[in-house]
Amino acid sequence: MTTSLDAPATGGAHAQPPVPTSPSGPAPDVTEAVLDVARRAKVAARALAVATRGVKDAALHALADALVAEADAVVTANVEDLARGRASGLSDGLLDRLALDPARISAIAGALREVAALPDPVGEVVRGSTLPNGLRMRQVRVPMGVVGMIYEARPNVTVDAVGLTLKSGNAVVLRGGSAAASSNAVIVDVLRRALVAQGLPADLVQTVDVFGRPGGVALMHARGLVDVLVPRGGADLIRTVVREATVPVIETGVGNVHVYVDATADPAVALPILLNAKTQRVGVCNAAETLLVHRDAAESFLPSALTALDQAGVTVHGDDVTAALAPADVTVVPATDEDWATEYLSLDLAVRVVDDLDAALDHIRTWSSGHTEAIVTRDLASSERFVAEVDSAAVMVNASTRFTDGGQLGLGAEIGISTQKLHARGPMGLGELTTTKWVVHGDGHVRP
Amino acid sequence: MTTSLDAPATGGAHAQPPVPTSPSGPAPDVTEAVLDVARRAKVAARALAVATRGVKDAALHALADALVAEADAVVTANVEDLARGRASGLSDGLLDRLALDPARISAIAGALREVAALPDPVGEVVRGSTLPNGLRMRQVRVPMGVVGMIYEARPNVTVDAVGLTLKSGNAVVLRGGSAAASSNAVIVDVLRRALVAQGLPADLVQTVDVFGRPGGVALMHARGLVDVLVPRGGADLIRTVVREATVPVIETGVGNVHVYVDATADPAVALPILLNAKTQRVGVCNAAETLLVHRDAAESFLPSALTALDQAGVTVHGDDVTAALAPADVTVVPATDEDWATEYLSLDLAVRVVDDLDAALDHIRTWSSGHTEAIVTRDLASSERFVAEVDSAAVMVNASTRFTDGGQLGLGAEIGISTQKLHARGPMGLGELTTTKWVVHGDGHVRP
Repeated sequence: MTTSLDAPATGGAHAQPPVPTSPSGPAPDVTEAVLDVARRAKVAARALAVATRGVKDAALHALADALVAEADAVVTANVEDLARGRASGLSDGLLDRLALDPARISAIAGALREVAALPDPVGEVVRGSTLPNGLRMRQVRVPMGVVGMIYEARPNVTVDAVGLTLKSGNAVVLRGGSAAASSNAVIVDVLRRALVAQGLPADLVQTVDVFGRPGGVALMHARGLVDVLVPRGGADLIRTVVREATVPVIETGVGNVHVYVDATADPAVALPILLNAKTQRVGVCNAAETLLVHRDAAESFLPSALTALDQAGVTVHGDDVTAALAPADVTVVPATDEDWATEYLSLDLAVRVVDDLDAALDHIRTWSSGHTEAIVTRDLASSERFVAEVDSAAVMVNASTRFTDGGQLGLGAEIGISTQKLHARGPMGLGELTTTKWVVHGDGHVRP
Repeated sequence: MTTSLDAPATGGAHAQPPVPTSPSGPAPDVTEAVLDVARRAKVAARALAVATRGVKDAALHALADALVAEADAVVTANVEDLARGRASGLSDGLLDRLALDPARISAIAGALREVAALPDPVGEVVRGSTLPNGLRMRQVRVPMGVVGMIYEARPNVTVDAVGLTLKSGNAVVLRGGSAAASSNAVIVDVLRRALVAQGLPADLVQTVDVFGRPGGVALMHARGLVDVLVPRGGADLIRTVVREATVPVIETGVGNVHVYVDATADPAVALPILLNAKTQRVGVCNAAETLLVHRDAAESFLPSALTALDQAGVTVHGDDVTAALAPADVTVVPATDEDWATEYLSLDLAVRVVDDLDAALDHIRTWSSGHTEAIVTRDLASSERFVAEVDSAAVMVNASTRFTDGGQLGLGAEIGISTQKLHARGPMGLGELTTTKWVVHGDGHVRP
């Protein structure tokens, strides 16, 4: 935690009060301060829970307007983050993800307007009927209440999280990456003031960044106040949150993703899917990390595929059969179990030739993180077995793994991709930020 | 943990191997043994995940038949439990809940047949469409995998849990109350043999009772193997599991349930609902624990209500206004904050007169456990506000709180009543024991 975090970069009438924190480690006053943040979020959430879609959408547009209007202040704060990042040796890639300019801020504001255009999940009747005894029963979608978000560097996640939680009727408590602390402080301040101008409570959007790491830990333990905590970031962050949190958590994002090329696959279909899955965007959770090839397809598919991967700048980590089939000018690094286990998030790909579909399913069962797997095949029975037996959030048949994405699957924006089975699995949109309530109307009904 | 638990009371070819445990505290070998149980459950679950409804329903009937056929062995083991219970001073009420006879075993078997008659949630398409780019997307209900159950005394819960988890395509790992250990060991053994006779893996049903308390703790930490853990029992048990578990947990059951009698309530509707909610069955989570009365209804409603409660054997813990309105022959114990907070689970009721609907909502917000609240009213606006603003799993309008029940609400049997907001809220039936999988079919689709 850097000293600059102890005082937000700007502070209007609706800025959260700056709170001194202990120089290292959690302290009782940090815990109490974070619980107080969560309590205020809970109170604020009550106002939003009964707000109409009209009120919420107007607020989202107002937040977007405010971000654009105050882009200069955001950029100024961002310059501080970038300077600190350069001084601490952040890579060019990370600096690029951190950087904001008016065009990027405009795009971020545009995402808020897109969320405003999405249907409101609140009030949806999930099921309902009149029971034989005449009771009218319905199960209605309602907001969660208070959503916690713990995430890493990119400041656009701050705005995305606010948009999705507000639209679904929730208050949000944010703990962003320290690298983006100055940008996030200004963004949160801008959004809070815009909420108040709309007649909504500022405390719908709060950050615990000023409390540093201990603040994040306190958030993980705010039982009864935080209804769900969503970590978004690398494997380490997610593991820490899952292990440490006593509030309900949705595990997101780690994707050790497989593409399986079956015996009957059409190479003209398989190769574009493979290249798209591996190279269209590396460093994302739905990018492919391992290619499995049926041995009957290996000779016809692998040599040209390895050449294409090589030309795309991909380093192949292959088993013996793969190495033997590689053209002379393509280097294959010998693969170990560690390669099967690794989510590279880079231009690397593990490649293994398998005896049959069963061996492919077995490999996936052993090594997959349960995010997304794809089969390329012309055989109906193989595709049906793959769909039935792969135990992952998403299964693709003759399509790129990159389609596991809320926007691509028509959910609108997404708050993350769940790799757990409880509550939400796969891309999480607005509906996944709600829960349900049973509402029962009777006429003096008693239970016999 | 009693010594008799170290060796199951019976042991056929498909009995789980008896494993010696350390006399006190968790030990690495217990952890490893429980992880091994969970691993075997995961393998067994794979077979069931692709089983048809026909196979599962036939198995459920076979389990029911086996329980009836081997009722004598179950009763013999139950006699051991009862003797141990009497020796350790269990109350008559607990001994009654523990006791099994052929009639009760027949009823328990009947519950399995009822689960067989319920629709199969697996395979249900939750949503699906063809996307603008031609991708065919559907979200399909699939089994969770491995369900853990940690519960208290009643052996019927063992069978209910097995029925619901099998029907929903899951394997179950049980940790029952030590008071019912002998009964549970025989029941599990009977069910395992019946599964094998149906060509299904015995390891779909396993217990970690032989490992005692450390086995339960190991189950709570079996990350990656146990997909969801459902504790069922008293508040202490649930609190312990929620705090201790690192696997996903669904919190169940604690019900500090309120009945609010509004200014316009018809006493002829309010009194039967109140008596039903409080006295139809005490000791259950959907029974009323606090009565709130609008002050405009207090004079007309409370005197006769207090007399009726008194005649029903209910001890009233009331505020000053309530005490002042009580008939001379009805004793009102002065209520403290502890009364507002308590889930009595007995013939006790806290009673408070409130100034208006806002005060009632405020009381509920402060003290409710979020299970069920009821309003009795003739005023539409009051009912609408109560439904919108009470943040509980179930809200009743002019109906008894006792209707918060899977069977009563048409879900069929229930595995528990969730008081959390994640995944399941309120009664949990078969659907709540499943998750979903995204299945996407393309024709070589890649992401642009």
